[in-house]
Amino acid sequence: MSEIDLKLRKRSDYGYFLSYRTRWSDNDQYSHMNNSIYYHLFDSIVNTYLIEQCSQDPATSPLIGLVVSSFCQFFSPLSFPQVLDLGLRITKLGKSSVSYEIGVFTEGKDSPAAVGGYTHVFVGSKDRKSTAIGQKTRDGLAKLL
Amino acid sequence: MSEIDLKLRKRSDYGYFLSYRTRWSDNDQYSHMNNSIYYHLFDSIVNTYLIEQCSQDPATSPLIGLVVSSFCQFFSPLSFPQVLDLGLRITKLGKSSVSYEIGVFTEGKDSPAAVGGYTHVFVGSKDRKSTAIGQKTRDGLAKLL
Amino acid sequence: MSEIDLKLRKRSDYGYFLSYRTRWSDNDQYSHMNNSIYYHLFDSIVNTYLIEQCSQDPATSPLIGLVVSSFCQFFSPLSFPQVLDLGLRITKLGKSSVSYEIGVFTEGKDSPAAVGGYTHVFVGSKDRKSTAIGQKTRDGLAKLL
Amino acid sequence: MSEIDLKLRKRSDYGYFLSYRTRWSDNDQYSHMNNSIYYHLFDSIVNTYLIEQCSQDPATSPLIGLVVSSFCQFFSPLSFPQVLDLGLRITKLGKSSVSYEIGVFTEGKDSPAAVGGYTHVFVGSKDRKSTAIGQKTRDGLAKLL
Repeated sequence: MSEIDLKLRKRSDYGYFLSYRTRWSDNDQYSHMNNSIYYHLFDSIVNTYLIEQCSQDPATSPLIGLVVSSFCQFFSPLSFPQVLDLGLRITKLGKSSVSYEIGVFTEGKDSPAAVGGYTHVFVGSKDRKSTAIGQKTRDGLAKLL
Repeated sequence: MSEIDLKLRKRSDYGYFLSYRTRWSDNDQYSHMNNSIYYHLFDSIVNTYLIEQCSQDPATSPLIGLVVSSFCQFFSPLSFPQVLDLGLRITKLGKSSVSYEIGVFTEGKDSPAAVGGYTHVFVGSKDRKSTAIGQKTRDGLAKLL
Repeated sequence: MSEIDLKLRKRSDYGYFLSYRTRWSDNDQYSHMNNSIYYHLFDSIVNTYLIEQCSQDPATSPLIGLVVSSFCQFFSPLSFPQVLDLGLRITKLGKSSVSYEIGVFTEGKDSPAAVGGYTHVFVGSKDRKSTAIGQKTRDGLAKLL
Repeated sequence: MSEIDLKLRKRSDYGYFLSYRTRWSDNDQYSHMNNSIYYHLFDSIVNTYLIEQCSQDPATSPLIGLVVSSFCQFFSPLSFPQVLDLGLRITKLGKSSVSYEIGVFTEGKDSPAAVGGYTHVFVGSKDRKSTAIGQKTRDGLAKLL
């Protein structure tokens, strides 16, 4: 998907939202949220969704999702102490992999400050070999397609 | 103050509260919130208070607070995806320095999971030399004594 | 560039190297280096190169580089306490923007564990408006093309 | 131990050293290394020592060390892209707990920029109950007393 398309995302393109309070150390010495921090937030909303809506438990589930690729496009700066709304959608649900897209919004804005995401391949938590996603997890993920 | 005292803290000992959603990467490989992360949260509530209640602006204020010492006592583990309540109090307000104490609470609990804090010395943002805290900032800080 | 291409990168594809010791908290609860940490390392080698080889000073330079898009592909897991070799190359040098690619290697391996990068747009440090890269910085960047 | 004592530490007070390259995001918006980052480095040298010198394996050892209290005193600022030397000593070795002290040095300086540390209580990795430190681990720790 081209950059121009992602910039046009609206809140209504996302089916699951969480708010995150930014932290002092999210800002780097340019006094804005460092680009790496967005990925920490992506991980946070994805894993919260997996835990709360897809019956996943990172400590005990037989399958875990490992990130194989990630990306982000940054449209406008954010900074501590802003509170951010993150929206989650799923762009592709395969046999053993799933691709998430996250929109990052400031309060009251309908256009995202950034859009990014990543692809999880599900693997056995012990052998770390690619494995078909279980039905319960799939059902939870499918709701955001 | 001895460890046993800090363990006895209650929510009512703190005058200013903010809630922080934990992040996936806050957990280390022992599946609990890493000890360093508490300090990121301390920095976040202190600086939010300075910005919102004490007329401080990190980018433009003539004085900034630098941390000269910090500590934390950990009473019970926390972990992602918990949402944490942080309470802030001020234990000492000197001419150019201020000591903060922060209690970290899980939702619904009145006893802290951890208590820590740090001392800020205010310095000129350019020369970084110790300087008396301005009246507006002092007024804001004094509310939490 | 397709995933298969980046996986074929060798150390000799990169012109500037730095070694980074991983940190305990780089590992997440899956006991491997969290995907977000790679971006912290990308930022570190790029900015070290800008400071040491391109006459940039983040605190005083009239122009600063802001990240407008970033990506990473993960080929094999890394984990604390490994020491990592990062290699930097420049894939595109425009009038006001530059695209970096970073290969992440473990000691003794010639194939990368991950390859990613980002695009900097140079802007005025005050007005944050896109500006042509200065000659000294351009000269430093051109060495890695 | 009073602040004046820790400020007087020299490199020769520490028995184990590792060098850490700082990262871009270690600097906060005051353009110096954020106070929280020191604790990430403390965790890194302690756990590297436990793994390399004390036969500990975080993923499989029956006992793991949990931090129950930590502290740091900051004497002079540090900042990216400095390379830091960390020195480790052990100040107390009990039946099930151990207290570490870390000195943070810049290259070529014999006086620390910061000194801090923490206390580990060893617990069963499953039941998380306090347990006597095993002989192999104790032998490794005793070398730094």
